[in-house]
Amino acid sequence: MSKVVVRSFAVSIDGFAAGPDQDLRHPLGVNGPELMDWFFHTRVWREMHGQPDGETGTDNRIAQLGFEHMGAWILGRNMFGPVRGAWPDDSWKGWWGDEPPYHVPTFVLTHHPRPSQPMAGGTTFHFVTGGIHEALERARTAAGGRNVRIGGGAATIRQYLQARLIDELHLAIRPVILGSGEHLMRDINLRDLGYECVESVQGERALHVFVRRRTSD
Amino acid sequence: MSKVVVRSFAVSIDGFAAGPDQDLRHPLGVNGPELMDWFFHTRVWREMHGQPDGETGTDNRIAQLGFEHMGAWILGRNMFGPVRGAWPDDSWKGWWGDEPPYHVPTFVLTHHPRPSQPMAGGTTFHFVTGGIHEALERARTAAGGRNVRIGGGAATIRQYLQARLIDELHLAIRPVILGSGEHLMRDINLRDLGYECVESVQGERALHVFVRRRTSD
Repeated sequence: MSKVVVRSFAVSIDGFAAGPDQDLRHPLGVNGPELMDWFFHTRVWREMHGQPDGETGTDNRIAQLGFEHMGAWILGRNMFGPVRGAWPDDSWKGWWGDEPPYHVPTFVLTHHPRPSQPMAGGTTFHFVTGGIHEALERARTAAGGRNVRIGGGAATIRQYLQARLIDELHLAIRPVILGSGEHLMRDINLRDLGYECVESVQGERALHVFVRRRTSD
Repeated sequence: MSKVVVRSFAVSIDGFAAGPDQDLRHPLGVNGPELMDWFFHTRVWREMHGQPDGETGTDNRIAQLGFEHMGAWILGRNMFGPVRGAWPDDSWKGWWGDEPPYHVPTFVLTHHPRPSQPMAGGTTFHFVTGGIHEALERARTAAGGRNVRIGGGAATIRQYLQARLIDELHLAIRPVILGSGEHLMRDINLRDLGYECVESVQGERALHVFVRRRTSD
C-alpha cells in the first residue's frame, strides 16, 4: 500500500534539522553537514556521487531502505535550492547536478510557477504552487501505488506532520549539538497528533528512530 | 578534580525531560515514566529499591557511573517534592522514603527557608534560598574534592547550563515521544555556550550521549 514517508532525516540532539544561515555555500546551514556525517560514509551515498567504497554497516542498510519502493518525492523550495522569490530563469536545476538521486517524479513546493524540468536518470522536477495538499495529491498519482517520500526540509515536514499526512518517519539522531537553525519538532505535539516511536536501531554514526502514526486514530 | 556534572538525565526524542502536569501522583509528569524506563530495568535502580535481579548491561553500567565519585547533589524544588510555596511543616522529606539514594549532602533550591533534614544512609537535605550560585558554592565545599551532581529537574539544569557552570552532561535519549512537558534545551544555544558531544553509546533502552563544555572557552 502506498505510504507517505520521511526517511533518513537527520536531527541533532538539540532538535535541529539544519543549521542557521542556509545559502548557496551552506545548503544545510552553517555546521549542517555535521547532521549528515552518518550518511556521507555509506556506500549508498558514495555510489550516488560516483565514488568507490563506502561503509556497508547499519547506517548504510537503513539509508538504502530510504530509497526503496519510492514512487515520488516532495521537496520544499529551500531544499531544491537557494533561489528565493520568482524564478529569474530556469537555470537553477537543484543541488544535485544533471542526474539527481530521485529517479522519479519530484514535486517542489513553491509560490512561483515554472515549467516542469526533466533531468537525466528519470527525475522530473514539477513545481507545485497550490500548497502541500495539491503536491501530495499529484505525488500520489505519480507514485502509482509506491510510496511518496517527503524529502524535507524541516519546514515542509512540519507542515505535513501538522496536517497528519505522514505515515512513517525515520529520524537519524546525530550525537551533535547545533545550537541554532531549523528545529523539526518545536511547538508540534507529535504525541497528540497520534505519532509514536516503534523502533530504534543504533547505527555506526546515528541512532535511527522509527516513528509511526497510529492507524487507529 | 571536582566537576559539576549531570548524569543519567533522560530526554525524549522531542526534547522533553518530564511530562506535563507534574504533581504528587505524577512526579515525572504525565507519561514521564516512559523517560525512565531504561533506568527501571537496571540492577542499580532495583538494588536502590531493595529489589532483586535487574539487568547488568550497558544501561546499568552507565547508570552506575552516575553515582560514582559524587560528593554532593543539587536538586530543584520540584524534584524534591510536590509542595509549592512556603513549607507548611517539615513532614515532606522527598520522594525517596527514609533512605534516599544520595548518601551525601544534597542541596535543594527553594525560595522558602527550612532547617536541614538529616536522613538515613548519609543523605542530609539542605535548603538553599540564595539561588544557584550559593547552592553550588555550598555543594562544592561539602563535596570535598569529589563531584557535584545536578540531579534536575529540567528547569534547574537549564539555569546551570545558561550560567555555563556544568562541566559534563550525560543524557539518556529515550526513543519515545512525549509531545509536551518540560523541555531541556529549548531556547538555549548549547553550542554558543561551548558545549559539544564527545561520545555516544547505545544502551539496551536509551542512547547515552556525553556532552562536555570545552575547557578552552
